[in-house]
Amino acid sequence: MNDRKQQLLGATCRVIARDGIRGMRVENVAAEAGVSTALIYYHFGDRAGLLAQAMQHVNTRAESYADAEEGKTGREQLMLQVLGEFQDDDLVRENSAVWGEVRGAAVFDEALRPVVSAATEQWVTDLADFIEQGRQDGSIAPDVDAHAVSTRLTALIEGLSNRWLARLMSTADARHHLTQIVDQELTPSHAPVGD
Amino acid sequence: MNDRKQQLLGATCRVIARDGIRGMRVENVAAEAGVSTALIYYHFGDRAGLLAQAMQHVNTRAESYADAEEGKTGREQLMLQVLGEFQDDDLVRENSAVWGEVRGAAVFDEALRPVVSAATEQWVTDLADFIEQGRQDGSIAPDVDAHAVSTRLTALIEGLSNRWLARLMSTADARHHLTQIVDQELTPSHAPVGD
Repeated sequence: MNDRKQQLLGATCRVIARDGIRGMRVENVAAEAGVSTALIYYHFGDRAGLLAQAMQHVNTRAESYADAEEGKTGREQLMLQVLGEFQDDDLVRENSAVWGEVRGAAVFDEALRPVVSAATEQWVTDLADFIEQGRQDGSIAPDVDAHAVSTRLTALIEGLSNRWLARLMSTADARHHLTQIVDQELTPSHAPVGD
Repeated sequence: MNDRKQQLLGATCRVIARDGIRGMRVENVAAEAGVSTALIYYHFGDRAGLLAQAMQHVNTRAESYADAEEGKTGREQLMLQVLGEFQDDDLVRENSAVWGEVRGAAVFDEALRPVVSAATEQWVTDLADFIEQGRQDGSIAPDVDAHAVSTRLTALIEGLSNRWLARLMSTADARHHLTQIVDQELTPSHAPVGD
């Protein structure tokens, strides 16, 4: 993707994180980026196209949280990636806010659902890949269902993210709760009490 | 609370679930309820007061999901209560949508945060009470941290709820994932792999 498109998507995310998606108009994005609306329509077709690419942009920026390092197990990479969602960093908060706004709006706006569905599935698959890697390197038990665990982890992150963005939960608490769930999900358990 | 106030709060919830909180005006609620705006101001003071009581109204309606039955363990009651959040029922969807709207808006509107914080804490406490009951009746292990588990379960429910309301996840799948997490949270585990 060329620099100009990246710059326009960055402006789109700033506008959504600041005003919310329902206040997000192509005119505001153009003003934020210092370009004409025509340029935005040229690159993205329409508002829906712009939002779809903004969601991908958020996904791509979030992929750097783990910063794939040599010698790390799948389990370690997974943990780095999910904990990366909660950092005292403006860009991380912006990513989280954009994601929350678009998926929240999809409850009311059916036209957004394919965009949210595709972006969510991409995220779920990315985390599931770390789990698969962990199953192969032995850091994660072989009977863990990678896609199901990833679905639950991403849903939990979304729930925690809302509280964290609204300052109802600290960064440390969000990371602590997430760590607990990852450990539970990836650790073989006894039969439930009462079974 | 008198019937008239209940009726006004019901109208408030319908308006939020239909139009979203940012489209929610006291005028719309008055029109939905077939009353004057003055009556709403009389009962609730202002829009913030109306929203605070609407959140409590949602909490109260949701408390009936478990329908406290004689002879059920704390664990069974907890499961009934949390699974009640995902039902193919218009009022349950409306509850979920209102809750999601108000907490989503609190990211952008600081004035809403005390309302969301109080309503969330009430919900967390209600679920923690079932867990405490389960610890006492032996259906839940004594070393389970009731408040922490309840915090994570409610966050997960919020994350799943958004996907469910946007029709990205079926009722059955939402209930399945929630059951998995409850079982993991309440079941003693082996030490994590690698420890």
